[in-house]
Amino acid sequence: MTELRPVFYVSDGTGITAETIGHSVLTQFTETRFESTRISFVDTLERASETVARIREAGARHGVRPIVINSCVDPEISAALVESGALMLDVFAPFIEPLERELGQIRQRHIGRAHGMVDFERYHRRIDAINFTLTHDDGQSLDYADADVVLVAVSRAGKTPTCIYLALHYGVLAANYPLTEEDLEHDRLPPRLRPYRNKLFGLTIDPARLQQIRQERRPNSRYAQLETCRREVAAAEAMFRAERIPTLSTTHTSIEEIASKVLTTLGLQREMF
Amino acid sequence: MTELRPVFYVSDGTGITAETIGHSVLTQFTETRFESTRISFVDTLERASETVARIREAGARHGVRPIVINSCVDPEISAALVESGALMLDVFAPFIEPLERELGQIRQRHIGRAHGMVDFERYHRRIDAINFTLTHDDGQSLDYADADVVLVAVSRAGKTPTCIYLALHYGVLAANYPLTEEDLEHDRLPPRLRPYRNKLFGLTIDPARLQQIRQERRPNSRYAQLETCRREVAAAEAMFRAERIPTLSTTHTSIEEIASKVLTTLGLQREMF
Repeated sequence: MTELRPVFYVSDGTGITAETIGHSVLTQFTETRFESTRISFVDTLERASETVARIREAGARHGVRPIVINSCVDPEISAALVESGALMLDVFAPFIEPLERELGQIRQRHIGRAHGMVDFERYHRRIDAINFTLTHDDGQSLDYADADVVLVAVSRAGKTPTCIYLALHYGVLAANYPLTEEDLEHDRLPPRLRPYRNKLFGLTIDPARLQQIRQERRPNSRYAQLETCRREVAAAEAMFRAERIPTLSTTHTSIEEIASKVLTTLGLQREMF
Repeated sequence: MTELRPVFYVSDGTGITAETIGHSVLTQFTETRFESTRISFVDTLERASETVARIREAGARHGVRPIVINSCVDPEISAALVESGALMLDVFAPFIEPLERELGQIRQRHIGRAHGMVDFERYHRRIDAINFTLTHDDGQSLDYADADVVLVAVSRAGKTPTCIYLALHYGVLAANYPLTEEDLEHDRLPPRLRPYRNKLFGLTIDPARLQQIRQERRPNSRYAQLETCRREVAAAEAMFRAERIPTLSTTHTSIEEIASKVLTTLGLQREMF
């Protein structure tokens, strides 16, 4: 029987850092199911005591001690949360003391600084990248002169979500080009892609999986037939091989992993937003 | 004089967890500038020793001890990285022992589990949300029956990036409706939004900031005039007040913060992707 354990991500900011690390750690404990609740913007003692009440209530309801992953920067608020009786795991504490010693300075307690507004210039770069990606999605604009990367693949292989991720989190000007039936008749790159060879990254996918995805989108179309998927994927892979385009299969790969592989392979070092 | 300190985010997966927490912690140390490098997919001892060489080289170049924020799950790889001489900060270590004790089990070392592929059903929900957002962006489709949230604002107030964030990270069906000049002549909700009142969230923005953003987009247009921005923002705010639509100013707010506030305000609890 799998135990159900309530987990609370508590933060005086968005809670994104707490949930990111908490999720990474908890997926390593496979014998427990976790019921997670994010409580953001706990930035007053009043909000802290409401939070304590919610945590206690969950503990009583499940008859088990809750876990709190806490990223509140204010020590008074963190102290108040201890009243919940939960197992308290502090996201920042283990890093602060070694860093203060190494850097010879005391950290500044800027609440929610990490996912707060940075500077307008940085914000503009991010928004510009998102706009670029939306206007260069699915072959809408084929002007790739400014693009950092052009993802190339058959329809429904994962291009759009990856481009959006790259733009939103790395400010990368990410375009994508859908290989058409006509493109796939040749095993050379479509002429319009040739000038951008160094920016190209091919995505491929297991044909059975592609069939499943297309079937949800356009049930019982020729587009969704397994035979069509097989033929298109084989032709795309042959083209990538012949042209030595770096390639990744998206079948068992998350959006985050595809994005990371693209950055690593093309040598794009960008600070994460 | 601000010191420049090299920081490496080293991971056997994407490195997203390491960079997220590292960024949150390091922004609290304001007297140092950090030059950060992400090294993903360090999943062999060979990759580990390449990484050690890069870290040593950066330390020698800057004449200062580098910092490594390490999220490698394999202890052999973590041990190899110690050879770099850097200050080693381990992302998972502080959490593992208390959790093993609390849960009475040993963690499983699944490399890169957190941002790896989860199940296909969960993946579909994510992709469906992204597709929904793209087809319901900027008033393209006005069918909000399935929407979880409809962001309402004047043009360029931050609707699109927020919707994309909500879809990509929380699987939220996020639509957005741009208030037109005609809408703004009345201080009541546009009739087509009325059936969805409980899903509405208004964004507002400082008119001077809006003017700046519009000016970059369409220089010297009527659209970008300060007077136009002032009038539109005032009319939108009056409408939100009259209709008691929850509202947030995006002027000094990051995409992450807007998304979190929307989720919190509308009571949408979604596990983060």
